[in-house]
Amino acid sequence: MKLYEMRQAPNPRRVRIFLAEKAIEIEKIEMNIQAGDHRTPEFLAINPRGLLPTLVLDDGTVLDESMAICRYFEALQTEPNLMGKTPVEIAQIEQWQRRIEFDGLSSIASVYRNSSTFFANRAVPGNLPDTVQIPALAERGKLQTQHFFEYLDAHLSKSAFIACERFTVADITAFVCTDFSRWVKLSPLEAFTNIKRWYDAISLRPSIKA
Amino acid sequence: MKLYEMRQAPNPRRVRIFLAEKAIEIEKIEMNIQAGDHRTPEFLAINPRGLLPTLVLDDGTVLDESMAICRYFEALQTEPNLMGKTPVEIAQIEQWQRRIEFDGLSSIASVYRNSSTFFANRAVPGNLPDTVQIPALAERGKLQTQHFFEYLDAHLSKSAFIACERFTVADITAFVCTDFSRWVKLSPLEAFTNIKRWYDAISLRPSIKA
Repeated sequence: MKLYEMRQAPNPRRVRIFLAEKAIEIEKIEMNIQAGDHRTPEFLAINPRGLLPTLVLDDGTVLDESMAICRYFEALQTEPNLMGKTPVEIAQIEQWQRRIEFDGLSSIASVYRNSSTFFANRAVPGNLPDTVQIPALAERGKLQTQHFFEYLDAHLSKSAFIACERFTVADITAFVCTDFSRWVKLSPLEAFTNIKRWYDAISLRPSIKA
Repeated sequence: MKLYEMRQAPNPRRVRIFLAEKAIEIEKIEMNIQAGDHRTPEFLAINPRGLLPTLVLDDGTVLDESMAICRYFEALQTEPNLMGKTPVEIAQIEQWQRRIEFDGLSSIASVYRNSSTFFANRAVPGNLPDTVQIPALAERGKLQTQHFFEYLDAHLSKSAFIACERFTVADITAFVCTDFSRWVKLSPLEAFTNIKRWYDAISLRPSIKA
């Protein structure tokens, strides 16, 4: 199988850390979004959405959502468990993972895609017609990001990990989200001591360098 | 356990259909978002995000993401299976579910929250400070919704169901998404014959009335 990805981008990084935690090695193909590699006819024939990461299985099956790719590997190789064992664990990890995606990652992406000069005419990721940036959306994204980090910090004041008192995929999403916030100068690491303590602890895992 | 929900809203409906497919009956508490029931101190003490649906388990555990709630019940009662059995099935269903959420449901929600007069000062769902609407975001959401339905129609020209050639949670998300599009007058049922054929077939399931 082959994983199309881009080292700099947050979503491919989530999958790389996940694979490193499971010690799974697969072929990786580096793409350059800034050069438009994800919008070539060749790549769009593989993934019409033009999103990374994209995993192509040996039988040609294409998986292009980070969490779908992670679930594939979680089911294929169950240990170390990163997505829950009991019904309550599975649900807790999923809900934190999604809270961080929707309230955190998406808000930061809103700021980035609607303010970065590079994306001036492509404010929406993937293979959509050109879309102009909406400055008001970048401003709204800043408020949402701040609100999210306040909420996350309060949660981490009571817990060493994001969910289930152990390292899970929710920590991966939150860690990548925290690093992504630096791209738009909204890092929580100075103002939020609980996030900082959790971040420093997670940073020590070898998978983070994947 | 108790499920806080609202009959009209799309996300609670996804959970209701899911539960009906599994013939699981639980206590439901009807909330009125328009009356602000989800922003009362009492409800925010249960769910600080102020989102519906919210499931409270007998031990007090709170689950507030639709798909986390569905995963809880899928793990608790495995049949009928709605989220996949093999690694590839699990991944395929998850990726379609997410594609429909991110490209479809979110785009429609963008249009609705940024154009409906009711949400003039609360353009972001949940317990955020008041946020004004962004008309340009509603316009962008219309383009994204149109693009999504084109993509979904092409997919359904080759398949009777959204994923794995059988009814799954991905059909539930897509069905609720299709009905939600009527709220903003973007229904695909006239222009897209494959979506129409699939929609009519899914409509016949008793769970749809849940």
